[in-house]
Amino acid sequence: MPSDSSPGARHHPQFGAGIWVFGQFVDRYAADAYGPPVDTLQAIQRAASVDGIVALDVNMPWPEKHLSVRDVKAALTDHGLRANAITPHIYTRDFVKGSFTHPDAAVRGMTIDRAKRAIEIAHEMGADYMKLWPGQDGFDYPFQANYRQLNELAIGGVREVAESDPGMRIAIEYKFKEPRTHMFFSTAARTLLAIDEMGVDNVGIVFDLGHSLFARETPSDALQLVHSRGKLYGVEMNDNWREWDDDLAVGSVHLIETLEFLLELRRIDWKGVWALDQFPFREDPVEAARASIRTLRAMDRVLDRLDLAKLKAAQEAQDSLAAQRLIHELLLGSSE
Amino acid sequence: MPSDSSPGARHHPQFGAGIWVFGQFVDRYAADAYGPPVDTLQAIQRAASVDGIVALDVNMPWPEKHLSVRDVKAALTDHGLRANAITPHIYTRDFVKGSFTHPDAAVRGMTIDRAKRAIEIAHEMGADYMKLWPGQDGFDYPFQANYRQLNELAIGGVREVAESDPGMRIAIEYKFKEPRTHMFFSTAARTLLAIDEMGVDNVGIVFDLGHSLFARETPSDALQLVHSRGKLYGVEMNDNWREWDDDLAVGSVHLIETLEFLLELRRIDWKGVWALDQFPFREDPVEAARASIRTLRAMDRVLDRLDLAKLKAAQEAQDSLAAQRLIHELLLGSSE
Amino acid sequence: MPSDSSPGARHHPQFGAGIWVFGQFVDRYAADAYGPPVDTLQAIQRAASVDGIVALDVNMPWPEKHLSVRDVKAALTDHGLRANAITPHIYTRDFVKGSFTHPDAAVRGMTIDRAKRAIEIAHEMGADYMKLWPGQDGFDYPFQANYRQLNELAIGGVREVAESDPGMRIAIEYKFKEPRTHMFFSTAARTLLAIDEMGVDNVGIVFDLGHSLFARETPSDALQLVHSRGKLYGVEMNDNWREWDDDLAVGSVHLIETLEFLLELRRIDWKGVWALDQFPFREDPVEAARASIRTLRAMDRVLDRLDLAKLKAAQEAQDSLAAQRLIHELLLGSSE
Amino acid sequence: MPSDSSPGARHHPQFGAGIWVFGQFVDRYAADAYGPPVDTLQAIQRAASVDGIVALDVNMPWPEKHLSVRDVKAALTDHGLRANAITPHIYTRDFVKGSFTHPDAAVRGMTIDRAKRAIEIAHEMGADYMKLWPGQDGFDYPFQANYRQLNELAIGGVREVAESDPGMRIAIEYKFKEPRTHMFFSTAARTLLAIDEMGVDNVGIVFDLGHSLFARETPSDALQLVHSRGKLYGVEMNDNWREWDDDLAVGSVHLIETLEFLLELRRIDWKGVWALDQFPFREDPVEAARASIRTLRAMDRVLDRLDLAKLKAAQEAQDSLAAQRLIHELLLGSSE
Repeated sequence: MPSDSSPGARHHPQFGAGIWVFGQFVDRYAADAYGPPVDTLQAIQRAASVDGIVALDVNMPWPEKHLSVRDVKAALTDHGLRANAITPHIYTRDFVKGSFTHPDAAVRGMTIDRAKRAIEIAHEMGADYMKLWPGQDGFDYPFQANYRQLNELAIGGVREVAESDPGMRIAIEYKFKEPRTHMFFSTAARTLLAIDEMGVDNVGIVFDLGHSLFARETPSDALQLVHSRGKLYGVEMNDNWREWDDDLAVGSVHLIETLEFLLELRRIDWKGVWALDQFPFREDPVEAARASIRTLRAMDRVLDRLDLAKLKAAQEAQDSLAAQRLIHELLLGSSE
Repeated sequence: MPSDSSPGARHHPQFGAGIWVFGQFVDRYAADAYGPPVDTLQAIQRAASVDGIVALDVNMPWPEKHLSVRDVKAALTDHGLRANAITPHIYTRDFVKGSFTHPDAAVRGMTIDRAKRAIEIAHEMGADYMKLWPGQDGFDYPFQANYRQLNELAIGGVREVAESDPGMRIAIEYKFKEPRTHMFFSTAARTLLAIDEMGVDNVGIVFDLGHSLFARETPSDALQLVHSRGKLYGVEMNDNWREWDDDLAVGSVHLIETLEFLLELRRIDWKGVWALDQFPFREDPVEAARASIRTLRAMDRVLDRLDLAKLKAAQEAQDSLAAQRLIHELLLGSSE
Repeated sequence: MPSDSSPGARHHPQFGAGIWVFGQFVDRYAADAYGPPVDTLQAIQRAASVDGIVALDVNMPWPEKHLSVRDVKAALTDHGLRANAITPHIYTRDFVKGSFTHPDAAVRGMTIDRAKRAIEIAHEMGADYMKLWPGQDGFDYPFQANYRQLNELAIGGVREVAESDPGMRIAIEYKFKEPRTHMFFSTAARTLLAIDEMGVDNVGIVFDLGHSLFARETPSDALQLVHSRGKLYGVEMNDNWREWDDDLAVGSVHLIETLEFLLELRRIDWKGVWALDQFPFREDPVEAARASIRTLRAMDRVLDRLDLAKLKAAQEAQDSLAAQRLIHELLLGSSE
Repeated sequence: MPSDSSPGARHHPQFGAGIWVFGQFVDRYAADAYGPPVDTLQAIQRAASVDGIVALDVNMPWPEKHLSVRDVKAALTDHGLRANAITPHIYTRDFVKGSFTHPDAAVRGMTIDRAKRAIEIAHEMGADYMKLWPGQDGFDYPFQANYRQLNELAIGGVREVAESDPGMRIAIEYKFKEPRTHMFFSTAARTLLAIDEMGVDNVGIVFDLGHSLFARETPSDALQLVHSRGKLYGVEMNDNWREWDDDLAVGSVHLIETLEFLLELRRIDWKGVWALDQFPFREDPVEAARASIRTLRAMDRVLDRLDLAKLKAAQEAQDSLAAQRLIHELLLGSSE
């Protein structure tokens, strides 16, 4: 690991995206959807049209029953893409009362089966990890849940999946809430504790910048925390207004904290893809992805100009004004 | 209006609901929906099975093209119900970039046409008001909107609808956000200013308890504000965690503030229906509505036992402990 | 007023500050204060050492009984400063249960007397307005307040002060909360409604950027709202984390929204001072003020490079990506 | 540990309080304080006048240099009280840039010395634990802190204190923020991870109900998490509006979640004191403490009537409506 003051030469970032970024969006009001349906191959094609994207996080099962894993893999390859992650749908209608924590053991079993199938596909596709986003595991109301039971089921379920194949990395993407008013895997710290309790070596975290902002974490701090425990498996990016997972274009609201986050990625020498997780309800998805990549590249170049020695000195003295001045001069130019 | 200290005898509340409470829910994750489709007549039937519900807020256009206004009205009547409000769909796919504030004049025109058609139906159905919930009017990003233009279009659009039929009351349901990250009609005060600027006499407010909590208003205070300006046209109820419009069962989280809200409804002598606006994603809608009505009736009975003279004295002295003691004794019993 | 697309040539901003920025800070934990005491003349001297500051908002009564108004005015003049506002202390120990809304009529009278005395001083000092920040008017608990009474007292009290001298402008600085958990003059819209109810012509608003962020307003939007009603009397600046009035250095957290705010100030052709309202608990106040001014000047210069015609086109189309790109290119440079 | 469904007979709670509850309050506005000064012996006397309080959390050093530890202990004993915790002042003027994480090694040393002295006093007083509330350890601005260094210093500092006396329990009271905009020991999970990293056996957590609400945790869930790791050393209670540490009377805002929290205390068979941590700025402190105790006793009695078997069944089925009905019937009476 590079030392704090010299995070080394810039590593040209490679980008990824969730395949859903290029799909059809719906919400509870525009139940007729924000646009026409998009099938899996179209979504891949759209993703491939974004310069810089080299990898996709692919949901399974995909809706088209006739498409084999080999077909999807071929489509990716044909477009110069690869799957960096496979994410099972465990938050759709069958799972609305929970996946790993569903009150019905049959659904819990179905969850585990689907996750195992996702592992197989991840192997077949050559993905870096199988991602779990158990968005329906949690609760909505006070007094609804027995929190110890919830804890036991969530941890036990992921452990079972992880133990079924120690050769595959399992990455949990935590989020504070939505669709549940309270998600079980809610914050970086809470998820690290849960992973600790699992007692397995192949479970880590997908760190979503927006989820961290939304959970009112300090993203750079939470990132180093996850990294320091050896649990950083993936990184996703977007922005929001800090009260909801708005999945906006990167750097659109929290520019300074996003810059600080990118610096932290340099410090930990992150070499994985920078994956976009956006829901451009009212924008063209391809243009929205391009915008985020353009922003990220520009921010990355800006960081090349940051005087790290001065920043280190300011931080060691906790001199907030000196640190800010460095950042403001980068973004606003010198004021003299 | 009764004086503050003696809000008069209890008025047995009559309940209403949005027809959507009994419909199919979808969100961006469970895009295959939280349950099977429900058609308009089924939804009416479900609503009618809830003891206490006498009126529905009915969305138009309903999906079934073969159903005439007369058909829907008959279905309501057959079930002992009436329409207290008609609410046009101005937040579906055609309107995702706005209804009254859509950048395209054609869509703005379509919005106004649909609202006018809703007024006709409201007359035909004998509804108390035509409700506007312009959920897509607003913006998502910094620098996206020209706020003055937004203001002009939103106010101008509603004014045009209102002026088209001074004999129908038009009620705006404000909400802080969702689906936009920022809605134009966001708070009670902001909406009252906008109504003032419209310069018409037939525009008021549907006060949604959850929206008020969500906007971090003090609901009782915001209610009296709207009432004091003569603009209270309708009341809807639910609960949430104050960061999102969760549309939970009434009194499930903010019991004390809900009780205070019901007291304020007595003070202003509200005689309209208490309409439920819930999204019971994971509960049976009929049971969820019954639960809220059971809670509301019990809260209403609890208020009968509140010593209003003592509360008045406590409030005049700003004696928070004395006021709390009255409330805690109601809910927890005497501690001696 | 300049048109939207051409806000005209840049107006070199002149800066002001609250005199408290240069005073001693205390909070409930460091009750022994964050630094040594600072007297009024020292605070003026400190302020004067900040290049760019030309005006101060001066609290009255100042602690030094021997200092006459003439003395303070002379001290300001000697340092090349003037008083742009006079702000009475109506939130200290005598007023902890309220100033205009205190349950005791004697304290309400004391409030009004002090405000009137502040008007006299404002005349003597040649201040632009007398500022009211009734931070103790509000409530802390559910059921504590009779909201109508609160409304009546707050509005009646300010009206009485305003009517006592139609020749002086009275500016209310709204804030969402603190020290009360709920302040009466909480948001721009709520305060505009209250001013409307007062029925006087000489009451307006001091718009504090941080208070607007804190109230979860969109500052640029709230600013134009206040301006459109002719009620913008003063502007203060700082930043915070949007959950509390942290009074941080300008542009330290919400850089993009601060930039948007400065653009709106150009659009409305604001010619008053840009006053700093910071509480640099752990920084040197003089350096903290210099930092904010440096940032503001640099942001102002950045705005000179903004292509307003392109922004207008983007906003008219609600094209969030195009608008963002303009801003990101200003701050991050071109990405090509 | 009792089983989930039968938390056993009610344990009559014994109450404690922070000595500061009975002291003088100040904030940044009422810098002349909310009331007259209160010395240590007066505060003890006030506390003793509250029926139910048996123990105090005592800050050191107390301001009166002539008062020995023996004097304070005697004063407690004379009033039928004991010290359950000793809390060093490590957040006053000397520590405003940090205690364990202060940039200056000399202040870090002073912090550790003071904490060690607090341990000695805790032994002498027979306290259950020495409490650390490092309210100034954290940061205010983006880019101000090197998070890894902060982590190292905070963890290393507490470890050093803990290792100095394995015979004394050291309890960290986490809080999300204030006076810093970001505190290092921010949440239950984050603090558990830090304790884990310390690698010592005598560091645990004081769980403050208000801090948990404020950190947007689910208090019952966070409580069981801390308990499950054997780290629950103390419990403090109050309420707030969930955006700030308002330190209000217990159960005044979040009645339902407070009830759920008390049930969880039964489940884990908590036998320690229920300590009040209130800042009754505008109320009489003795009356404010009495009010919270009255409320807590009444809530405790209410829980005796809760049908735990039915609650268990509802929770196992995640039946939110059934669970709520049980709670609403307790608080509102039967609705039939």
